[in-house]
Amino acid sequence: MLVILDQTRLPAEEVELVCTDVPVLVEAIRSLAVRGAPLLGIAGAYGVALAAARGFDVDEAAESLAHARPTAVNLGYGVRRAAAAYHAAAKAGADAQGAAAAALAEARALHREDAEASERMAAHGLALLDELLPAGGYRLLTHCNTGALVSGGGGTALAVAAAVHRVGQLRRLWVDETRPLLQGARLTAYEAGRAGMAYTLLTDNAAGSLFAAGEVDAVLIGADRIAADGSVANKVGSYPLAVLARYHHVPFVVVAPTSTVDLGTADGASIEIEQRPSHEVTDITVPYAPAAGAQAGTGIPVAPLGTQAYNPAFDVTPPELVTALVTEAGVVSPVTGDGIAELCARSRSGNGMMSI
Amino acid sequence: MLVILDQTRLPAEEVELVCTDVPVLVEAIRSLAVRGAPLLGIAGAYGVALAAARGFDVDEAAESLAHARPTAVNLGYGVRRAAAAYHAAAKAGADAQGAAAAALAEARALHREDAEASERMAAHGLALLDELLPAGGYRLLTHCNTGALVSGGGGTALAVAAAVHRVGQLRRLWVDETRPLLQGARLTAYEAGRAGMAYTLLTDNAAGSLFAAGEVDAVLIGADRIAADGSVANKVGSYPLAVLARYHHVPFVVVAPTSTVDLGTADGASIEIEQRPSHEVTDITVPYAPAAGAQAGTGIPVAPLGTQAYNPAFDVTPPELVTALVTEAGVVSPVTGDGIAELCARSRSGNGMMSI
Repeated sequence: MLVILDQTRLPAEEVELVCTDVPVLVEAIRSLAVRGAPLLGIAGAYGVALAAARGFDVDEAAESLAHARPTAVNLGYGVRRAAAAYHAAAKAGADAQGAAAAALAEARALHREDAEASERMAAHGLALLDELLPAGGYRLLTHCNTGALVSGGGGTALAVAAAVHRVGQLRRLWVDETRPLLQGARLTAYEAGRAGMAYTLLTDNAAGSLFAAGEVDAVLIGADRIAADGSVANKVGSYPLAVLARYHHVPFVVVAPTSTVDLGTADGASIEIEQRPSHEVTDITVPYAPAAGAQAGTGIPVAPLGTQAYNPAFDVTPPELVTALVTEAGVVSPVTGDGIAELCARSRSGNGMMSI
Repeated sequence: MLVILDQTRLPAEEVELVCTDVPVLVEAIRSLAVRGAPLLGIAGAYGVALAAARGFDVDEAAESLAHARPTAVNLGYGVRRAAAAYHAAAKAGADAQGAAAAALAEARALHREDAEASERMAAHGLALLDELLPAGGYRLLTHCNTGALVSGGGGTALAVAAAVHRVGQLRRLWVDETRPLLQGARLTAYEAGRAGMAYTLLTDNAAGSLFAAGEVDAVLIGADRIAADGSVANKVGSYPLAVLARYHHVPFVVVAPTSTVDLGTADGASIEIEQRPSHEVTDITVPYAPAAGAQAGTGIPVAPLGTQAYNPAFDVTPPELVTALVTEAGVVSPVTGDGIAELCARSRSGNGMMSI
């Protein structure tokens, strides 16, 4: 059985969700109870291990997990790694129990690698900011949630902010609330508060005013899939920030493990963007149960009934708007297809993290 | 007594708010029960007339109304017009009742002029779109609410969209939800639906994806104050749209009556921006009473308790990002200090609308 923290209930409650089989985990991924690119990879790998341990069809489980959400490349990556370990063990003569143990070991390895990657990304990001902004005392803007909640370690963009905080250089963390699902307001604010960072929440709309007032030194975001040309798919709202950052000559930095790079996707236009249902926009889902008794997690309509919404979960930022890509294997800047290819070649030969 | 539609309860309920004295009206303005630049001017004028009719100190009432909210110039304009009519009548020998009648007549005149101005703005806007986008079949993006709810007539930007709809040229109205108070989701969607327009709601974040996909032909917004140099203060989120529109070579059109121009404010930096409380961002205020019983209009916390928010109600778009300013007196394009001055001189000498 797999126990995950239900992120839809944060910051109101820390509720554990127990997944005893793969369909429950698939639903948890679809409903965003478990979310965030690196964590999806880890969850996918553990899901395969769970199916193997419980004697379910591993390939069927892998197929259904890999397609639970379309945009984050890490999900399929984690699933494939665990499934490959299972099949390799079986081929080498292991019985069902032994093959399941191999899948679990691979999921644990991915989990551990992700934690190590977080540390390396944080260190590379810190060095990059020091180079870009030698005056120190950074005011960093971030979008969505990219911290410990999405990772086996400290996360991606938020791990860099946390490292900046630990060395006493974080003047302000500007936290975009991140509509429609408010991952910034609910999750990043929660992590930033627990870490003791000086943070201020804002509507995604208000970021423009901060740029105009010269109150943003750099933007740090994560990524769900990076195409071979360096186009970055990330939470919807990232692209408008990239355009604002360019207009105001502010560095726009993407922090993601090399496992987020998908060399099989040529460019931004080829990235499949998940369209989510209207009700996420027309109804507000609240994590807290209000005193008067409405049930937490239920949607409260704000738009007229019957309103249709355009609700892409992600948008795509072209490489020319990305100042630098920070990975565990180093920094690519400027972000070009060649730079990405070189980084991946180095990373995949170097530490085997991308061996599948 | 003054009866207004409580906009905080829309679209869930059409609730009338009865103002029997000025402090109730001031509170209705502060809480946004009555909102929108042109309507604030009309409400302010009626408020002065109400104070006069009930025998309260007119100057004190005018002072408190004019300062209920700082950014919309129309509020002070309407208040000053009604107060001046009151004093002129008194000076000419009218008794208290006669002076109060003069204030009421002036408020009614402003109300009527605003309706006429809406019609003219709609006609000028329609002609401008026809010129800018001769192919017709427009996909228009709008932000906040600028329709009949904010006006004695059809409003400003939304009045142009409605005119486009009436001539069969509205392919799609993209409605920004407009965080934090969701005027787009609650009010513009309500007006668009009632008018039978083809509209789609989106989070403010998702506008970037629409621009990138070439799905926006023009942006239409209103204004709360226009400085002498043509800088436009409008609902927060307008400036990011202007930057996106520029980046994508999409016309960005501001629709506002000439009474929104404040020649006494030199430039954008001189416009006072209202900062509103954190709870508008950290708590979601819902217009509908959910079935489970939470009270409508109460805030439900989404961010961790104690979170501070940066919550400017407006932002400022510099004139170089505005393709055209559509007023009842004509269109200014490009938007320059000279163009604005000329328009105002023409308007103020021509029809007396700006006589105070």
